[in-house]
Amino acid sequence: MEPRHKAVSLISGGLDSTVLAYNLMDSGWDVHLLSVNYGQRHKRELEFAQRTAAALKVEHRIVDLTSLNQLLQGSALTDAAVDVPHGHYAADNMAITVVPNRNSILLAIATGWAVSLGAKRVAFAAHSGDHAIYPDCRPEFVSALNAAERLANEGFADEDFRIFGPYLNVTKAEIVALGHALRVPFVDTWSCYEGGEIHCGKCGTCVERAEAFALAGVNDPTEYMEPDFWKTALKA
Amino acid sequence: MEPRHKAVSLISGGLDSTVLAYNLMDSGWDVHLLSVNYGQRHKRELEFAQRTAAALKVEHRIVDLTSLNQLLQGSALTDAAVDVPHGHYAADNMAITVVPNRNSILLAIATGWAVSLGAKRVAFAAHSGDHAIYPDCRPEFVSALNAAERLANEGFADEDFRIFGPYLNVTKAEIVALGHALRVPFVDTWSCYEGGEIHCGKCGTCVERAEAFALAGVNDPTEYMEPDFWKTALKA
Repeated sequence: MEPRHKAVSLISGGLDSTVLAYNLMDSGWDVHLLSVNYGQRHKRELEFAQRTAAALKVEHRIVDLTSLNQLLQGSALTDAAVDVPHGHYAADNMAITVVPNRNSILLAIATGWAVSLGAKRVAFAAHSGDHAIYPDCRPEFVSALNAAERLANEGFADEDFRIFGPYLNVTKAEIVALGHALRVPFVDTWSCYEGGEIHCGKCGTCVERAEAFALAGVNDPTEYMEPDFWKTALKA
Repeated sequence: MEPRHKAVSLISGGLDSTVLAYNLMDSGWDVHLLSVNYGQRHKRELEFAQRTAAALKVEHRIVDLTSLNQLLQGSALTDAAVDVPHGHYAADNMAITVVPNRNSILLAIATGWAVSLGAKRVAFAAHSGDHAIYPDCRPEFVSALNAAERLANEGFADEDFRIFGPYLNVTKAEIVALGHALRVPFVDTWSCYEGGEIHCGKCGTCVERAEAFALAGVNDPTEYMEPDFWKTALKA
């Protein structure tokens, strides 16, 4: 049997990146998971990432970037003084949840690790629903960053190295359907930005999560504080 | 008087990035300096960066990325088990000093800070002599990363934001000459990779430093353990 090719995959502990980890395993990759503690309020995510790594029996590293927290101001995800917006996950009220340049930072670190490992891929789970809100989830950004990172590591990275986002043109509902087919234990994923004991059901990611299960026609095993809120949340 | 435009400039405490800080000040930029502690052995650099920030009376942040140290293996700059190579700073013996994807990581973080500050520039001091050794010091990499970072932060960064490396096509000797004209106190810069009390004079950066002063015809105020070693170091 040939040795499997290595892939570094970013995992937040959320639904999308967990499905991606299962998907890469299913496709035969030798998966190495990378999480970042950047001082996010919903730090519980990281415990869920650890569960997935344990279930898949793969290497998992968590790097501590909390020192960036003070530098990168103004985000509801890291700044305890800012309220998390409620309601549908639309551009106007969710822009505040943007950590400046987060994806570039995470993907650059993941690329450094991939070069160290001789991995052929850095994978991340940005999906089509992220585009409107996060400019660094757009396919044109990933394509440009891939070009830059290949140049940056020429002679050091695997010749076939690339950054890829297999869900860039996939909806969250399609990710749920894919995860269902791959038998992903969705209860072991965390989406809520509030960081409570169970999902709040009201924040942008909770609404998006519940809606995706409904659209996919997959039973949602998530325990929400307000399980029906998503039905009434106004769309942008 | 109009408010000055902000620029984030990476500063290691070495000669090149210190001259760049003085250069940006001289050109009228509102300079914000960023250093990274990534577990480098020559950590003394950071004290020299602080001296420059104090002399210029500008904001200086140091972010702690030591958690990346374990992730990014195999570099003499961070791995105490690897010897620092001696002699001329040539590709074959200095490749080992490459921290995987260092410039992408630093520039991505600097870009995040620039977006937070509303800065128009991220500047760094890679020069033409770095190209042969570090693929992430080449103009084509900087151009590609600039394109990616502008896309990543569209709508959040200043419209005129860009990453720039004003010394990409400038030699280290020319940087010394420029620093001399700008009255940069070269004694307050640190190049040596060994991290001793004074410059060793034998490592790649010491040899490169001493040679650059000689080529520029500028008096070298650096105290070296072996001040004449550079003259005998073989060129690649």
